[in-house]
Amino acid sequence: MERENQQYNGLKEACGIFGIYDINGHDTARITYYALHALQHRGQESAGIAVSDGKKINYHKGNGLVTEVFDEKNILHLKGHIAVGHVRYSTTGLNQIYNAQPIVVRYKNGYLALAHNGNLINADELRKELEDSGSIFQTSTDTEVIIHLIVKYIANGMVEAIKMAMKKIKGAYSLIIMTNEAIYAVKDPNGLRPLCLGLMDDSYCFASESCALDIIGAKLVREISPGEIIEISKEGIKTYEYDGSKKEAFCIFEYIYFARPDSVIRDVSVYSVRQEMGRRLALEYPVDADLIVPVPDSGIPAALGYSEVSGIPYGEGLIKNKYVGRTFIQPDQIHREIAVRLKLNVMSEMVKGKKIVLVDDSIVRGTTSKRLVAMLRNAGAKEVHLRISAPPVKFPCYFGIDTPSKKELIGSKASVEDIRKMIGADSLGYLSMEGLLSCFKDKGFCTGCFDGNYPIKVPEEGSKFIFDDFSTI
Amino acid sequence: MERENQQYNGLKEACGIFGIYDINGHDTARITYYALHALQHRGQESAGIAVSDGKKINYHKGNGLVTEVFDEKNILHLKGHIAVGHVRYSTTGLNQIYNAQPIVVRYKNGYLALAHNGNLINADELRKELEDSGSIFQTSTDTEVIIHLIVKYIANGMVEAIKMAMKKIKGAYSLIIMTNEAIYAVKDPNGLRPLCLGLMDDSYCFASESCALDIIGAKLVREISPGEIIEISKEGIKTYEYDGSKKEAFCIFEYIYFARPDSVIRDVSVYSVRQEMGRRLALEYPVDADLIVPVPDSGIPAALGYSEVSGIPYGEGLIKNKYVGRTFIQPDQIHREIAVRLKLNVMSEMVKGKKIVLVDDSIVRGTTSKRLVAMLRNAGAKEVHLRISAPPVKFPCYFGIDTPSKKELIGSKASVEDIRKMIGADSLGYLSMEGLLSCFKDKGFCTGCFDGNYPIKVPEEGSKFIFDDFSTI
Amino acid sequence: MERENQQYNGLKEACGIFGIYDINGHDTARITYYALHALQHRGQESAGIAVSDGKKINYHKGNGLVTEVFDEKNILHLKGHIAVGHVRYSTTGLNQIYNAQPIVVRYKNGYLALAHNGNLINADELRKELEDSGSIFQTSTDTEVIIHLIVKYIANGMVEAIKMAMKKIKGAYSLIIMTNEAIYAVKDPNGLRPLCLGLMDDSYCFASESCALDIIGAKLVREISPGEIIEISKEGIKTYEYDGSKKEAFCIFEYIYFARPDSVIRDVSVYSVRQEMGRRLALEYPVDADLIVPVPDSGIPAALGYSEVSGIPYGEGLIKNKYVGRTFIQPDQIHREIAVRLKLNVMSEMVKGKKIVLVDDSIVRGTTSKRLVAMLRNAGAKEVHLRISAPPVKFPCYFGIDTPSKKELIGSKASVEDIRKMIGADSLGYLSMEGLLSCFKDKGFCTGCFDGNYPIKVPEEGSKFIFDDFSTI
Amino acid sequence: MERENQQYNGLKEACGIFGIYDINGHDTARITYYALHALQHRGQESAGIAVSDGKKINYHKGNGLVTEVFDEKNILHLKGHIAVGHVRYSTTGLNQIYNAQPIVVRYKNGYLALAHNGNLINADELRKELEDSGSIFQTSTDTEVIIHLIVKYIANGMVEAIKMAMKKIKGAYSLIIMTNEAIYAVKDPNGLRPLCLGLMDDSYCFASESCALDIIGAKLVREISPGEIIEISKEGIKTYEYDGSKKEAFCIFEYIYFARPDSVIRDVSVYSVRQEMGRRLALEYPVDADLIVPVPDSGIPAALGYSEVSGIPYGEGLIKNKYVGRTFIQPDQIHREIAVRLKLNVMSEMVKGKKIVLVDDSIVRGTTSKRLVAMLRNAGAKEVHLRISAPPVKFPCYFGIDTPSKKELIGSKASVEDIRKMIGADSLGYLSMEGLLSCFKDKGFCTGCFDGNYPIKVPEEGSKFIFDDFSTI
Repeated sequence: MERENQQYNGLKEACGIFGIYDINGHDTARITYYALHALQHRGQESAGIAVSDGKKINYHKGNGLVTEVFDEKNILHLKGHIAVGHVRYSTTGLNQIYNAQPIVVRYKNGYLALAHNGNLINADELRKELEDSGSIFQTSTDTEVIIHLIVKYIANGMVEAIKMAMKKIKGAYSLIIMTNEAIYAVKDPNGLRPLCLGLMDDSYCFASESCALDIIGAKLVREISPGEIIEISKEGIKTYEYDGSKKEAFCIFEYIYFARPDSVIRDVSVYSVRQEMGRRLALEYPVDADLIVPVPDSGIPAALGYSEVSGIPYGEGLIKNKYVGRTFIQPDQIHREIAVRLKLNVMSEMVKGKKIVLVDDSIVRGTTSKRLVAMLRNAGAKEVHLRISAPPVKFPCYFGIDTPSKKELIGSKASVEDIRKMIGADSLGYLSMEGLLSCFKDKGFCTGCFDGNYPIKVPEEGSKFIFDDFSTI
Repeated sequence: MERENQQYNGLKEACGIFGIYDINGHDTARITYYALHALQHRGQESAGIAVSDGKKINYHKGNGLVTEVFDEKNILHLKGHIAVGHVRYSTTGLNQIYNAQPIVVRYKNGYLALAHNGNLINADELRKELEDSGSIFQTSTDTEVIIHLIVKYIANGMVEAIKMAMKKIKGAYSLIIMTNEAIYAVKDPNGLRPLCLGLMDDSYCFASESCALDIIGAKLVREISPGEIIEISKEGIKTYEYDGSKKEAFCIFEYIYFARPDSVIRDVSVYSVRQEMGRRLALEYPVDADLIVPVPDSGIPAALGYSEVSGIPYGEGLIKNKYVGRTFIQPDQIHREIAVRLKLNVMSEMVKGKKIVLVDDSIVRGTTSKRLVAMLRNAGAKEVHLRISAPPVKFPCYFGIDTPSKKELIGSKASVEDIRKMIGADSLGYLSMEGLLSCFKDKGFCTGCFDGNYPIKVPEEGSKFIFDDFSTI
Repeated sequence: MERENQQYNGLKEACGIFGIYDINGHDTARITYYALHALQHRGQESAGIAVSDGKKINYHKGNGLVTEVFDEKNILHLKGHIAVGHVRYSTTGLNQIYNAQPIVVRYKNGYLALAHNGNLINADELRKELEDSGSIFQTSTDTEVIIHLIVKYIANGMVEAIKMAMKKIKGAYSLIIMTNEAIYAVKDPNGLRPLCLGLMDDSYCFASESCALDIIGAKLVREISPGEIIEISKEGIKTYEYDGSKKEAFCIFEYIYFARPDSVIRDVSVYSVRQEMGRRLALEYPVDADLIVPVPDSGIPAALGYSEVSGIPYGEGLIKNKYVGRTFIQPDQIHREIAVRLKLNVMSEMVKGKKIVLVDDSIVRGTTSKRLVAMLRNAGAKEVHLRISAPPVKFPCYFGIDTPSKKELIGSKASVEDIRKMIGADSLGYLSMEGLLSCFKDKGFCTGCFDGNYPIKVPEEGSKFIFDDFSTI
Repeated sequence: MERENQQYNGLKEACGIFGIYDINGHDTARITYYALHALQHRGQESAGIAVSDGKKINYHKGNGLVTEVFDEKNILHLKGHIAVGHVRYSTTGLNQIYNAQPIVVRYKNGYLALAHNGNLINADELRKELEDSGSIFQTSTDTEVIIHLIVKYIANGMVEAIKMAMKKIKGAYSLIIMTNEAIYAVKDPNGLRPLCLGLMDDSYCFASESCALDIIGAKLVREISPGEIIEISKEGIKTYEYDGSKKEAFCIFEYIYFARPDSVIRDVSVYSVRQEMGRRLALEYPVDADLIVPVPDSGIPAALGYSEVSGIPYGEGLIKNKYVGRTFIQPDQIHREIAVRLKLNVMSEMVKGKKIVLVDDSIVRGTTSKRLVAMLRNAGAKEVHLRISAPPVKFPCYFGIDTPSKKELIGSKASVEDIRKMIGADSLGYLSMEGLLSCFKDKGFCTGCFDGNYPIKVPEEGSKFIFDDFSTI
């Protein structure tokens, strides 16, 4: 599944977040800039950094990539020893700058900046409740609901206010909250989205994925636990628990596709587990073939695993164009097929006359898979066997992933055999749920997109995108 | 006093506002765009338009001139029969987009958009009160305080809520408030800032100045009264009074400098009254001279009036460069004097060997007047007599004008004779307060910047800029 | 006649040029930047500066205003003691960057940079001649022909080469030519376009108009003579004559409209002569009226002169919007009349019930005059008498002014009475040719646009725009 | 060797070219746009397209990537059935737009557009010759010399003129030349740079690499021969030979690094031959190790080949950040190491405790290799063995590749053992020249950068960059 192209109708991650409480004299805004850059795959719509110098919070946010939103001038302007940053994914392409994060507010006792990765499922009713008690809202985000709740309970102290707010909200949320004086990391009781603790010299930091720690030279300490609140202040690090149930249900799709391959989440290397999925896939769906070809880049580790187990050589049969930009002049009707080749070209020399196993991580609508199979056949491939390193995606996600509706999900409406026919592959094999789970030592996953078993009762599908009610352009 | 140059340290108007409730099928966003363009002199930092289609409010705002913020695409996107727009003046040049107006919020019963011209003097204490009762703030503007108050009282109905909110706030405010269904114009009990009612075909509209009505072909109906609320809805126009005192104290500086000369405010033509100030000035401070030279453009009408009474010919002794842009490469030290000439050039042929009367509307710091006098002398002027069509500016404004602090106001710290010496003029005459007031038939002005007599008790100077507490860049 | 608006179909000047040979250690690129800024009214399409350090020529050019094309970085990069700059007017709005000037070339002996104001009438045949002898062309400009000719004759020395080239070319040209080592100013034998010599400290410079000297603090020495070549090198200043006939035919329209009012050309103040035209106009076409209203800004001096002689008061009946930008959202059909008001508003208070004399410098197509008369009537003017401070424009210009074709010139196809009717004025008076010429002490003008008497035989109208043969976009 | 980063001091290809003579009604400008996009790796500085409609040539060029320079508007403006396009690599980052190609000129008989890939070694003397006979130059490119020569001989007909010009110029050149009526492809007698003939439906086209044919759905016909001229006109295809010697010396570095892996050049698949280099490298420099890690992306095929022969597993030990943009905020001194990690991250889980073979295609200065080895060690690699799939680069290229000077080439100044020490690898193996050549069936390569054996006598190193003599910024 390709990620870069904005027009591509794949699955999209919601957000990436980072925070740091510095005691080593680092330039925290700059550090956050690099960390957000490493988390860019989690969101390309907008980027923002807020910084506290102990008294006041300054911030800058804007639409675009991290490298587009920030320059030397605004990084220099953001002075302070605590920082929180956020990247957000692209929905419409229109200017939704008022929804950019972190959201920064002034309230009775000072300032709050909040960065959120995830999605609430009861934000609408909470917002109505808050509106009934007089609150007003300036964005279309569920994140603004969280901040209202925290302020509502603030008289009880920050940690207690967070706990009380967390008891009201339902859904997926990994949060970084900054006050004038401290920074907090929070994970929902199911721990749906990743968030880890790192150490940069002697300064604690939080990041959605460990790849953000790598870039700044920080060490990964551990994953935040489900239902945990971590507070970093001048008194050091403290940890709190606000939900004892801790029924972990970590999004398994982070391992399959979303997370960067070089991240380590919950002590599991994303890359290694993808390779392992490929190995299991080879055991479950072996085939007599000449070459294992990955769909770059996300299919590579599974393809290598498949190759290892099957003994069939691995080869780059599809080559990516490195200069894929955001804005292409669209081909006219006659040359429509150019659109696919703008991103990928087939290595004819390599696939000609061969039986190919094409390995990808998932099929969403099936259109790209269909084109790739056709391209391989046109280049002379004798057979094309499609292998997917996860079960069919059948259900929408309510917890922070932008999935199409159920009726657009090919896995939801067609049998594997029908999908195979539609795509035009000689055979099609999806890794089984058992096979997928067996790649991990531990348990505790949300597999809702495959089997509809969500850790929390989800609303009717129609009510999914709750906050579309006013828009900026 | 020149206006265009952003770096110029003159006095700056706070804002311009416009609103319309259309029943004639006009494209309200486009109409608002043109109206804001005519009000551009009241604010060049940001521009915004919000539109209601009866159900929902959409908006677009951004930093820059109206023509920079809006294009065909976003105008087309803003559909609806009610609209409100705002232009805001430039403070720092940094990106303060979160303070752009109209502010649009969602609350219990729907949406509110609010555009504000003026300045509150008790916003800080009101904000603290609101924060104490749990409100959170996302901008640095006093306008956000007003919207919180209105929502707080909304259960009493919109008009009552506005009345109750207005009773809490103190200061200068001309407001246009839009709900999903109606639009409201409000003026503070002193009527400090302008706001008028217009009629475009059969549709009522509101504008800071009548020049905005001219551009869209609307007729000026009347000025909104101090302490008046006008409501335009599908039931037509209704008017309410929320403060019976009505002690009008209209900002006299709007007539002297801020308003566009082609506007008519409170039945008084701005241009004509400026000409009259020039006539009175000629009577108060006659001088034997050869040529009356205005400081373009604001000194022109007074210069013409002075010429008329004195019988001394009027002539353009200073010529403006029409291509003055925002960004100049700064001259090096050696060529510093170029900076002045970038904007104005002396007509040597015209002033050589002559006794000149230079007419301007005000002196703020005195540095520009000093340079102009020197330029005229260098070009061969035999004498330069400076005439100002208003009394010395001695006190800061707390009601929506961005004045320098008292210690930077030359009128505050030096006698007229000392100012004359500093500027290097042969003589200097300021129009007297009596002379100024005699230009008007009616009374009811705020003359605080000249005599410190403010219509409302003002805070200590230090506490003037209340909401500087968090900043975006 | 208004100038700022790019869409306005008035007459447009071709170019402005400036050059300096510095011996005082000035930053020549910066000096040229300011000088070009003062000449911006002569061309807004592109700007360019070339600098020689004695060995090599560096340059930068681009599309846009001087302040848009240049920034601190590229000014700093242009080091050298000789500089030449150019501004060019906007033709199509498309990117014609390859036609920007100065044109810089390398040839046998070194480098040449050439800046040209004017228009050749035999460029096409010269280009064919040069092509026949093997020359190739990379731009669509007649300027490239001149540079080819100079290089062709270069073996005879630079001055001789210029002389020989000048003998070949016909038309209007004021040139500044820079080699590695020297700078040259050249005027055609009729001296059609302006070019003057200035002195900045001890360094000689050349400029299209003296206003460019004013901004940099240079003194005006004298106008370059028709058929004169001036050379500035390390050996000082030398002057040469290449055409003894010297039948001066200076473009009279520079005085009427094109030149900046604060310039002095051929010892004549542009502003003063415009005022004089107004005086003569009042004598030729007196009228019983209440107010003299100029079309701002170009009609102002003539209106003041008319007022002076007639004794009728002068007043600003039309007010310009200072924020007229380049890009407006176009009004829809219903609101078409907004387009005019974007730039000018009528001062209703001032014109109501009055007999108005509207003074402008020229009528090209008549559409703007018609709208202005209508606006004045709508505002309540009792009578509107139009007075033009020049004779009717009847013929196209072949010498550097962008005029519409003869059939679009209203003066060419209609009688004065018919024009008056079309425009809707109560009376219409054009200054007579005799009246116009009597404003000047000296003779020697090109009045071709009024009477078709060109100083050189001109081609058929169809062949006017010779070099449209290949285009960049 | 990484390619994307503009600041990276690797080797840079000069240019990519494409041309088409369409008889099928294709939109040639759009086709050229896509083809140039596929050739973007050959040059990122500027892009240009010229189109002939049989009578006239229109063109558009600009600085930046193909997707930045062209938009729907300018593509639509370029109408015609013959087209030629060019991409150029980035030298300084400054605006060298006057050197963008194709160069388009008007000459006696019509128009010429010329796109050039390569580098002439006698351009300087030819330019002097041309200047002596009166030619003038407006760019700093050797390409302008070629066009002057062709025009000089044009009286003999186009093919003859090309032949005569080609006999004068020495060096590397693959050219596409377009007249109003025909298009020509030309290769130098040594065939140093690639250029192939393709067929899109029934229309012939030319491209630097076959990957450009793939994207537009054209078929690869054959490589142009050394010393061949192909003419496509309304009379179809004709081929000419202008140099019988045909001593082919194709740049072997195209196969090693420059060409896109999915291209086929001279019947050799670039990808396959790189894999073969890896296989030979494994035979020449075997090592006991646990994992073969490529430097992405260029080291991948050789790493796969090495893995295949050695039996050691292949794995992605270094992960690229997909969002590497052009403009990064530079890390401060303390965090300098971040710069490397912005582009590549080590997969610690994968390399920890392992003996690694790191495979790359070349070492230029050695600094990147050194950092990568250090990163692998820091991540826990037990041993790091560096294998390079080509011999040491010891000599600069004079034929179209931008190499650093000899003294900056580490291969030129240090022994393999010294390089190994400097880089910090446990062992270092370069593929031998024999090994490299044995990967190909045919002969006829330029291996000058490895052994100094150039096919043509080259100038002294100092005189390499001949045309730096005047610059735009």
